Amino acid sequence: MRLSRYFLPTLKETPSDAQIVSHKLMLRAGLIKQEAAGIYAWLPLGLKVLKKIEQIVREEMNRAGAVEILMPTLQLADLWRESGRYDDYGQEMLRITDRHKRDLLYGPTAEEVVTDIFRAFVRSYRDLPMNLYNIQWKFRDEVRPRFGVMRGREFLMKDAYSFDIDEASARKAYNRMFVAYLNLFERMGLKAVPMRADTGPIGGDLSHEFIILADTGESQVFCHKDLVEMGAPGPDVDWDNLEGHVEKRTALYAATEEMHDQARFERETSTDQRLSARGIEVGHIFYFGEKYSRPMKAMITGPDGVERPAQMGSYGVGVSRLLGAIIEASHDDKGIIWPESVAPFDLALINLRPGDEACDAACEKAYAALQAAGRDVLYDETDDRPGAKFARTELVGIPWSMVVGPKGLAEGNVELRNRRTGETSTAAFDSVLDGLIKG
Amino acid sequence: MRLSRYFLPTLKETPSDAQIVSHKLMLRAGLIKQEAAGIYAWLPLGLKVLKKIEQIVREEMNRAGAVEILMPTLQLADLWRESGRYDDYGQEMLRITDRHKRDLLYGPTAEEVVTDIFRAFVRSYRDLPMNLYNIQWKFRDEVRPRFGVMRGREFLMKDAYSFDIDEASARKAYNRMFVAYLNLFERMGLKAVPMRADTGPIGGDLSHEFIILADTGESQVFCHKDLVEMGAPGPDVDWDNLEGHVEKRTALYAATEEMHDQARFERETSTDQRLSARGIEVGHIFYFGEKYSRPMKAMITGPDGVERPAQMGSYGVGVSRLLGAIIEASHDDKGIIWPESVAPFDLALINLRPGDEACDAACEKAYAALQAAGRDVLYDETDDRPGAKFARTELVGIPWSMVVGPKGLAEGNVELRNRRTGETSTAAFDSVLDGLIKG
Repeated sequence: MRLSRYFLPTLKETPSDAQIVSHKLMLRAGLIKQEAAGIYAWLPLGLKVLKKIEQIVREEMNRAGAVEILMPTLQLADLWRESGRYDDYGQEMLRITDRHKRDLLYGPTAEEVVTDIFRAFVRSYRDLPMNLYNIQWKFRDEVRPRFGVMRGREFLMKDAYSFDIDEASARKAYNRMFVAYLNLFERMGLKAVPMRADTGPIGGDLSHEFIILADTGESQVFCHKDLVEMGAPGPDVDWDNLEGHVEKRTALYAATEEMHDQARFERETSTDQRLSARGIEVGHIFYFGEKYSRPMKAMITGPDGVERPAQMGSYGVGVSRLLGAIIEASHDDKGIIWPESVAPFDLALINLRPGDEACDAACEKAYAALQAAGRDVLYDETDDRPGAKFARTELVGIPWSMVVGPKGLAEGNVELRNRRTGETSTAAFDSVLDGLIKG
Repeated sequence: MRLSRYFLPTLKETPSDAQIVSHKLMLRAGLIKQEAAGIYAWLPLGLKVLKKIEQIVREEMNRAGAVEILMPTLQLADLWRESGRYDDYGQEMLRITDRHKRDLLYGPTAEEVVTDIFRAFVRSYRDLPMNLYNIQWKFRDEVRPRFGVMRGREFLMKDAYSFDIDEASARKAYNRMFVAYLNLFERMGLKAVPMRADTGPIGGDLSHEFIILADTGESQVFCHKDLVEMGAPGPDVDWDNLEGHVEKRTALYAATEEMHDQARFERETSTDQRLSARGIEVGHIFYFGEKYSRPMKAMITGPDGVERPAQMGSYGVGVSRLLGAIIEASHDDKGIIWPESVAPFDLALINLRPGDEACDAACEKAYAALQAAGRDVLYDETDDRPGAKFARTELVGIPWSMVVGPKGLAEGNVELRNRRTGETSTAAFDSVLDGLIKG
C-alpha cells in the first residue's frame, strides 16, 4: 500500500480523554475513532489488526474442531424469557422495540440463540460432540465505558458453545477450548494465564478466565509464578486427551479477585512463587451443564434411547479488546510494538527522498518484489521529513523498516530497522531485500 | 471437512412460509435459520458463501483504490440531526435509547458516520481523492420482511463513500465504482445491468442500480437487450479514464420502474431490442455532491486556498442479499448450482461404502491429497444411503463430486460428477484426482 493513497490519520497530540496507554496509542496511531461513548469506528490500520486477530482465533477454533456460524446482532427477547435471563440481566442489556412493538435486544452474548439453533436441528447423540462458534459484534451498555476498546459498549467477540451428551464428554470439550485458548493467545505474543473465575451471569460451576498481566489491568489477580512462563501446548496435541495439559496448569494456584482465597494461596505457594498483579481478562470459558438446555428443551436422545438435556459450555474471546491488551503488553515510549503475527503490515518501505531518481527506482523495485513475494508492505513515498516518517512508523509499530536514502544508495546500501529491538543495520540493497522476501 | 464432524442441517420438506425459490433453497440446504422476522442466523454452509462473496467485493473495492474501514452498527442520532435526515427517515430506522437516555439508531446506511470520520481528519485537496468503504451489518425495519435474505431486516452491506474536491473528480470516482461493480458481479457469475435509478432517501441527482434479471424480481425493469450480454470491462482498465466503459453502457436505454419513460424507451430501441423483465437490485450507486458535506461541514481547502464542501458519492452492494440473487439466477429442481467462485466447497468427496477397506483408503488418500493442494473438500463419510448422499450434494450445490464406490474401485475407477451440467464420467482414480488437484 502506498501511504499517499492510504488513510492513516496519526495524531501528534495525545487526546486528553484517554487514560491508559493502549487507548492513547490507538487514537494517536490512527487505529480507531470514537463515534459515541464506548462505540468506535475502526480506521484502516486498526481494522487490519482486528482482522488478523480474528483470523488467528478462527484458525485455532477450527483446529480444535469447532464449526463457524454467524448469529445476528439483534435477538428476540422471548428467547431470553425462555431461559429466564431477560429480567435478570439488568441495564447492561440494550433493549429495543421494533416498529411492530416487538421486544428485541442487542446480544450481549448468545447462549439462548445458539441453543435455539441447536434444538431446531439436533436430536441424537450421534451428532455430538458439537461446538459452534461465531465472531460477531456484541453490545453491553456499560454504565461508564472507558479505556477505549478495553471496556467499550459495542465490541467484537468470539463466542463458542459446546454441546455434549454427558458431563465427561462436556469436560473434554471444555479442555479442548482451554488448550485452544492457550495456543491462540501465544500466537498473538501474549502470556495468558488461566485462572479459576466466578461464573457471573453466564452461570455454571466451572469457569476459567484467561488473564494477561499488565499494570493497567482492571482487577487484581493472584497466581503461582510458573504459570506465567509456562508456554502453550501447541497444535500437535491429542485433542481427545488433554487432561494432562489442563491439570498441569490447574494444579497451580491462580485466581481472580472474586475467587481468591489468601490462606489457600499461602498454603499452596512459597513466598518466592507468589505473584500478585493487575490483570486484563482476554478470554473466559464456562461449563454450565443444563442451565440453558433444560428450560429451552434442547434435548438429546442417548444410545439408551433416553432423552436428556444437552450438556453445554460457552467460551468467549474479546477480539476487539485484544488490540488494547496486546498494546498494553507491548509498547514503548515511541509507540506500539506489534508482534509480527498481528502487525498491520509486515514492513514499512521508507523512501527518504521521493523525487530522487535512484531512490524512487530502488523503492519501486523493492516494493514490487516484496509484494510479489506476498509481503504486505506500507510504502511511505510521501513528502514528509525523514524524522516524521521514522516517528510515524515507530508510532504505528510496524515490525521492520527498509529505509532507502540517497547517501546509502550511492554506495548500494539501505538500512534495516527492527521496531522491537531498535537495532539498525546497513547492508547491500539486494541482501536486505532478499532477507525481507524470505521473511 | 468431514461431514460427520460438520453441521449441515438440510431439510427434506420445503418450509411452508418460504415463497420464492432462493428462500426455500437456503432453508432446505441448511444455509440460514430464521431467528426473528427478517433476522437470520447463518449456518456453516451459508456463512462460507457469505464470506466468499464478501471477499470478492473486498478485492474489487481494493483494486479500484478504495480503503477498508469498519463503522459501528449503532450510530448517534445527533449525527443524523446534523444532516437533517433523522426525522425524514421514517419507521424503517430502528431507533434505540440507551441507559443514559441518549438517542442511538441501528445504522441503515452510513453517510453521516463516514462524513464525521472524514471531517475529523481531512482538510486538504492533497489527501484526495479518497474512497472509504466498509462491510458491516445494517438494519432496516421493513414493515413486512419477506423473501428470506432478499428483504431481511438485519443484512450485510458493503457501503463505500467517495470524497473529492470537485465534480469532475467526483465523477471519476463514480465511474471507478461503476466499473468495479460490473467486475465484481461478473466474478460471481451474475449478469448485472446498470440502470438509471431514483435516488430515494440517499439523495442526489445521479444514480444507477445494478439489476439481475429474474422472474422473482421485486420490480419491473426496462432495458436494451445488448446490456444483458455485454460482459464486464475486467480488471485491466485505465482506472483514471473509464468514461468510455461507462458511456458505452449508459448510452443504451435501461431504467427501473420509477425512472421508466415508455415513449423514450420506444424511441431509443427497436422492438426486438426491447426487454422488459423483473429485476433484483444487487447494487446501487449515488453521486450527491454536497448533500452531507455542506450541513456537516466536511470542508476541503483547494489548491487556491479556498475552503469548499467535499463532493461525495456513496456505493452500496447487498452482500447478504447476493446469496438469494445468485440462487434465483442459478438453480434447478434438485437444488442450488453455485458458481465456482462462491461455492461453499470446491468439491464433494463421496464415499459410497464407509467401512469398506478399499473405499476408505482411497477416500482418505484423495482427501489428504486434495487438501494438501489447497482444495476445500466436503468429505461425505456418513452412513447415509448413496441416494441420500447424491441428493444432499446436489441440493447444496457443490460444483464437483468425486464418487468412490466398491464396484468402480475394484477396477481402479471412480466417478466424477458436474453439478451444473449433470454430466458424469468414470475414469481411473489417479487421473480424476489429478484433474481435481489442478482445479
